[in-house]
Amino acid sequence: MTRHVGRHFLQIPGPTNVPDRILRAINAPTIDHRGPDFADLGKEVLSGIQGIFSTENPVIIFPGSGTGAWEAAMVNTLSPGDTIVIFDIGHFSQLWGDLARRLQLNVSVIPGEWGRAPDIEALESMLKADTAGKIQAVCVVHNETSTGVTANIPAARAALDSSSHGALLLVDSISGLGSVEYHHDAWGVDVTICGSQKGLMLPPGLGFNAVSEKALHASKSATLTRAYWDWDAMLGPNANGFFPYTPSTNLLYGLREAIKMLNEEGLENVFARHARLARACRAAVSGWGLDILCPVESERSNVLTTVNLPNSDALRRTILDRFDMSLGAGLGKLT
Amino acid sequence: MTRHVGRHFLQIPGPTNVPDRILRAINAPTIDHRGPDFADLGKEVLSGIQGIFSTENPVIIFPGSGTGAWEAAMVNTLSPGDTIVIFDIGHFSQLWGDLARRLQLNVSVIPGEWGRAPDIEALESMLKADTAGKIQAVCVVHNETSTGVTANIPAARAALDSSSHGALLLVDSISGLGSVEYHHDAWGVDVTICGSQKGLMLPPGLGFNAVSEKALHASKSATLTRAYWDWDAMLGPNANGFFPYTPSTNLLYGLREAIKMLNEEGLENVFARHARLARACRAAVSGWGLDILCPVESERSNVLTTVNLPNSDALRRTILDRFDMSLGAGLGKLT
Amino acid sequence: MTRHVGRHFLQIPGPTNVPDRILRAINAPTIDHRGPDFADLGKEVLSGIQGIFSTENPVIIFPGSGTGAWEAAMVNTLSPGDTIVIFDIGHFSQLWGDLARRLQLNVSVIPGEWGRAPDIEALESMLKADTAGKIQAVCVVHNETSTGVTANIPAARAALDSSSHGALLLVDSISGLGSVEYHHDAWGVDVTICGSQKGLMLPPGLGFNAVSEKALHASKSATLTRAYWDWDAMLGPNANGFFPYTPSTNLLYGLREAIKMLNEEGLENVFARHARLARACRAAVSGWGLDILCPVESERSNVLTTVNLPNSDALRRTILDRFDMSLGAGLGKLT
Amino acid sequence: MTRHVGRHFLQIPGPTNVPDRILRAINAPTIDHRGPDFADLGKEVLSGIQGIFSTENPVIIFPGSGTGAWEAAMVNTLSPGDTIVIFDIGHFSQLWGDLARRLQLNVSVIPGEWGRAPDIEALESMLKADTAGKIQAVCVVHNETSTGVTANIPAARAALDSSSHGALLLVDSISGLGSVEYHHDAWGVDVTICGSQKGLMLPPGLGFNAVSEKALHASKSATLTRAYWDWDAMLGPNANGFFPYTPSTNLLYGLREAIKMLNEEGLENVFARHARLARACRAAVSGWGLDILCPVESERSNVLTTVNLPNSDALRRTILDRFDMSLGAGLGKLT
Repeated sequence: MTRHVGRHFLQIPGPTNVPDRILRAINAPTIDHRGPDFADLGKEVLSGIQGIFSTENPVIIFPGSGTGAWEAAMVNTLSPGDTIVIFDIGHFSQLWGDLARRLQLNVSVIPGEWGRAPDIEALESMLKADTAGKIQAVCVVHNETSTGVTANIPAARAALDSSSHGALLLVDSISGLGSVEYHHDAWGVDVTICGSQKGLMLPPGLGFNAVSEKALHASKSATLTRAYWDWDAMLGPNANGFFPYTPSTNLLYGLREAIKMLNEEGLENVFARHARLARACRAAVSGWGLDILCPVESERSNVLTTVNLPNSDALRRTILDRFDMSLGAGLGKLT
Repeated sequence: MTRHVGRHFLQIPGPTNVPDRILRAINAPTIDHRGPDFADLGKEVLSGIQGIFSTENPVIIFPGSGTGAWEAAMVNTLSPGDTIVIFDIGHFSQLWGDLARRLQLNVSVIPGEWGRAPDIEALESMLKADTAGKIQAVCVVHNETSTGVTANIPAARAALDSSSHGALLLVDSISGLGSVEYHHDAWGVDVTICGSQKGLMLPPGLGFNAVSEKALHASKSATLTRAYWDWDAMLGPNANGFFPYTPSTNLLYGLREAIKMLNEEGLENVFARHARLARACRAAVSGWGLDILCPVESERSNVLTTVNLPNSDALRRTILDRFDMSLGAGLGKLT
Repeated sequence: MTRHVGRHFLQIPGPTNVPDRILRAINAPTIDHRGPDFADLGKEVLSGIQGIFSTENPVIIFPGSGTGAWEAAMVNTLSPGDTIVIFDIGHFSQLWGDLARRLQLNVSVIPGEWGRAPDIEALESMLKADTAGKIQAVCVVHNETSTGVTANIPAARAALDSSSHGALLLVDSISGLGSVEYHHDAWGVDVTICGSQKGLMLPPGLGFNAVSEKALHASKSATLTRAYWDWDAMLGPNANGFFPYTPSTNLLYGLREAIKMLNEEGLENVFARHARLARACRAAVSGWGLDILCPVESERSNVLTTVNLPNSDALRRTILDRFDMSLGAGLGKLT
Repeated sequence: MTRHVGRHFLQIPGPTNVPDRILRAINAPTIDHRGPDFADLGKEVLSGIQGIFSTENPVIIFPGSGTGAWEAAMVNTLSPGDTIVIFDIGHFSQLWGDLARRLQLNVSVIPGEWGRAPDIEALESMLKADTAGKIQAVCVVHNETSTGVTANIPAARAALDSSSHGALLLVDSISGLGSVEYHHDAWGVDVTICGSQKGLMLPPGLGFNAVSEKALHASKSATLTRAYWDWDAMLGPNANGFFPYTPSTNLLYGLREAIKMLNEEGLENVFARHARLARACRAAVSGWGLDILCPVESERSNVLTTVNLPNSDALRRTILDRFDMSLGAGLGKLT
C-alpha cells in the first residue's frame, strides 16, 4: 500500500474541506453561553445565516446533524398519521421517507428514475387529485447527493400554487445551500433543511431549519411530540441571541467565519465558481469517455458529478491508495 | 467599564475551559466519515468512552446537547403515558420533568429542598407503594448544577432493589462524569446521560447515553417515536466504528484527546483533584463568612460550590467587569 | 510532586504569555516570501511597527533574538576599537558590555547599584570629560529585567545634549517596548533594540532595530564586519515589503496581529494597564512584608517587580510545584 | 483577475508547505526557556536533529535564517583574510561567495555552468596546486535551488582526501536535508548548514550548523568576530537542553514534531518519495516538450526541477492568477 504523508484530498460530496480560517475560528476558548459576548455571537450568526438562506424569516440552528434537521422540520409541522409526498429519485429522498415513517407519518411516493429530477408533473396531478387535502407536506431534496441532480424548487412551488393546494413545501438543501442558487423566501419554501458540513464549509454538527410564517403557523397545531427540536422554545431566546439549551458554541464561531467568507466572496460569485468547476468536471468525465449518471444537462448538479462506473469501489480504493484522495461511493441502490 | 484584554476566566459550571490540547485536536481537517481512518477514530472513542463511564455496555454518542441526550434516554425506553419519577431538588431536575411532560410522559414528583440531595427514603416508599408497577423510570440528577449537590446513586439503586421494583434507573451525570466518581455498571444504572462540555472538557455538541442490557431490552418495546435518537440504528454501524448519519467528526477528535488526557492523569487522580479544589473553595467561602447553599457536608458537590448571596447578579457583574471572570448565575427559583 | 494538568501560569519577565489570537495568527500556512501577498504583509508590519516604537524612521526586523538585535545595533554603527559606555546596574546591562567586548569594542563602565537606575550625572561628567570624542555610543537598558528598574531615557538624551557630545544613544527596550511609554523619535534615540517575546506578545524569534538618521549615517562608515545583520541590505527590499533573505513569515503573521491588538487597546491604555497591575503587585509585596529590590519609587518598573528573598530558588520551586506557576529567577549577581 | 478562495498551492522550492501537524505543534503557549520542561524539549530536539543530519556530533540551532547559518559556519571557523573556494554554478553558490567577501574573506571561484554540478576535478587540481595551504575552506551547495542540481558531496570529500589538503569542507544543504540522502559524518563534512523551511517542513526562522570535531577545533583559533553565532557559547548550555539566549521556542515545538514525522515515515522512505515525485515531474516536463535546465540526468535534483522557458514570468503570473499556484522564479542570472 502506498504510504500517505501529505495532505489528504477529501473529495466526497460532504463533509467538505473545512477552510483553515474556519478551523482557526473554531479553535477558540468556549465562552459562557448565557453571557453578553455570547449574545453578540448569537445575534450575528442568527441574522447572518438569514442572508445565506435568502430569507427574512427565522432560521433555527440546532446542535445536531442534517438528519436531525429533517426530523425537526417534520415534528414541528406535522401530526401522527399525516401524509407527506416524497420522490423516489435517490438515496436521500428515500431516507427522508424512511425517517417520516419512523415518525408515524404516511408517505406517498412519486416514482422516478435515479438520475433524474423530481417529476413535477406527477406532483401536480397528485395534488390536483387530492381534493380532500390529505397531503400535508411535499418533500423535495434540492440537490440529491446520491445522483448528482438538482431539483427545480420554483417548479414544485408552482405545482402547489397552480393546484391551489395548501400543503407545506419542505426542502432539503443540505448539499445545495451555499453552493448553488437558493431563495427560501422568493421560492416560497416553508421549511428549508440544512447541515453545516457542505456549502457552509463547517465540520458537521449543526442542523438548520429556515421557516416560513405558514410553517410557524402550522407548528401551533402540529401534534408530533417534540422537545429538543421544538422551534417555539428556540425562537424566544434566539431573539436575544441565546439558545434554550447549551448550543454548539465553537461551531457557531466557525459559522460566523463561514458567513463572513461567503459574503466576502459574494454568493453570486460562489455559485458561479461552483458552476465553472462543475463544467470543468463534466468536461473531464466526457473527455475520459465515461457516462454521467444524470442524462439531462439542465438537471445536472453543480455541486457534484455522479459517474457510472462498472467497478467503482475498486477504482475508489485505488485512488485512495495511490493518490490519498477520498471519492464518494455509490449510495443506496446505486452502490 | 474595565477594558478586558487578557484571557477570560470562565468559571461557570459549564461549558468548562477547553484545554489547548483539545482545541488543537479539534482544529484538524474533517475526514470522510465512511472511510477507514474514521473507523479507527470511531472505534477508539466508542471503546475509550466506556472506561470513562466505567461500563462494558455500549455508550451511544449523538451530535447534540445534553438536553438531546435526555430526550434520547426517554424516547428509547418509554412509551406515551408512562410514569417517571423525578425529584424537585433543583433547576435541572425540574427541567427533566418538563421535558418528560412534553414527550407525553406522566411525571411523579418527589418534593425536596433545593440545596439537598434527593430524598431516597421517599423514593423507596413510593416504589414500595407502586405495587401495580406503573412507574417505568426513576430519574436522578447525579450532580445538580443549580444547587451544588451530588446525589447518592448507589442509594437510589438500593431503593429500587430493596423494593424489588423493575423501574429503570436513569441518571443525568452531565456535570458529574469525568469530575467525580461514577460507575455505570457497578452502580446498576440503566441509562447514564452526559454531555461533552463539562468533565469531558470539550466544547458543547456531543450527547451521550450509556445503556444497560435492561435498557436495551426496554427499547425493543418502547413506543415513543424516535428516529434521530434511536439507539438501535446507532448500535449496528457503531460496531464497526461508524455512525448512521454524519457524526460530529471534529468533536470526536477532541473526545479522543480528552479520553487520553483523563487516562494519562488517571480517573482517581482527576477525582482527587476536584475534591481538593472543592475543599479549598468551600474553605474560602467559609473564610469570607458566606453561606454555602447545601447545608449537609456529605451532599456537597466537588464540581461546583453554590453560595447564597443577597445580590448575586450585581456581584457577578462587578466580577465580570473588574476581573473578566464569568461566574454561574442562580438558575430557576434560585435566580 | 504535584501533578499539573491545567494551564501553566507563565509569570516570568519574558517570554510572556502569547495571546490565543496571536497563536492562531501564527498557525497559518507559510506563503511565498517573494510573492504579492507577502509584500502586503511586509508593508503592513514594517509600517505598523513604527507606530509602536513611535518613530517615523525605519524599523528593521531580523529573524533572531534580542541578543541578535543588540549585535545588529553595534555592528552597523561601530568600528573595531570604538568605545561605548555601559552602566553596571544589572545583568542585561552587563551582558551588553560582554557582547561589545566580543565584538572588539572598548567598553567604559559607569558603576552603579543593582536595583537603581543608571547614574545619569556620572554619564554627563564622563561625556564632558571626553573632549577628544572617543566615546562612540552610550548604551542604556530601558527596562532592566534583572532588577525591575526603568531608566530615564530622556535624561540620558539630555546628558548627551548638554555636553554637546556626538555619541550615539543606543537603547535596549527589549522588555519595555509595548508595556511602558517609549518614544524613539521624541526621545532622540539612535538605535532602539527590541525582541518579539515581551511587550509585543509574540513567541521569541524576531529582533528589532529602530534607527535614527544619525545612526543610518554612522552605518555608512562603521567598519565592524556584518552581513546577516546589515541594515543597508534590509532597507532596499523593505521599501517594497520584502526582505533580503528568508524572513520568519509566521512570526510576522503574529506581529501583524500583535500590532492590531496594541492599537485596538490603544498604547496609552496598555501603559495604564501595566501601571495599574504594577501598583497592585507592589502593594501585595509590601502587604506581605517583603522588600522590593529597587528602593526608589520613581525608578520602579511597571513591567516587573523584583523582590529580595533569602531563599528564592526554593520558593520558586515550591510555587512551580504547587501552583504550576513559573516565576523569574535572580540573574547574574542577583542569583 | 481570478478570485482565489481556496487553498493556495505553494510550489516554490521553499518555504515549503508546513504540514498541519507542525502548525498545530507551533500553536502552543510559549514556555519558560530556563525551566525544566524546556530542558526536555531542548534535549529532545538537539538529539533528534542529529539523526536527521546523520551525525553523532553536535548540531547547533540558531534563531535565524539559513543565511545566518552560513554566516555562523564562517565566523566560527575562519579568520579575516582566509581563502575559501566556491563554485560558480548557481545563485546560492554565488551568494555564499558574496557573504564571505562581506566578512573580509578571500574568495576563490571555480567557474562552472549554471545547470551543472560543481566541477570536482577542477577542485582537486586547485587543492593540489595549493601547496602553501592557503585555502581554509571548500564551500559546496549540496542542492542548488536556482538550477535544480545536486552536488556529489562524497566526491568533494574525496578530492580533499586525495590531495591531502586540510581545508574544511562546508556544505549548504539548506534545500537538501530531509529530502535527499545526506550523511554529515559518513561524508566527512565539517560544517553542514541548514534552515528550517525546506525538508524540515517548518516555517522559516531556524538556522542549523552540524559540526565536525575538526570544525570545532578550528573554531578555537578562528578570529572572525562573533557573538550571536558563537558555537562555543551554545555548546555549554545545549548540553543540558538550554540555550545561551532566548531560543525560538515555538519553532522548536515544530521541530520536535517534524523530527517525529520524518522518523515515523523513515528517512529512506522520505528520500524514495522525493525521488518518485521528481521522476514524475521530469516525465511531465519531457512530455510537454520542455527542457530541463540540468542536462545530466545523474546531477538532477530530486527536490526541485528547473525548466527553461522563454517567458517564465508571464507563465508564472498566469498560473498564479488562474490556479492560485506559486511557482519559483528564476534567480540571479537565470532571471
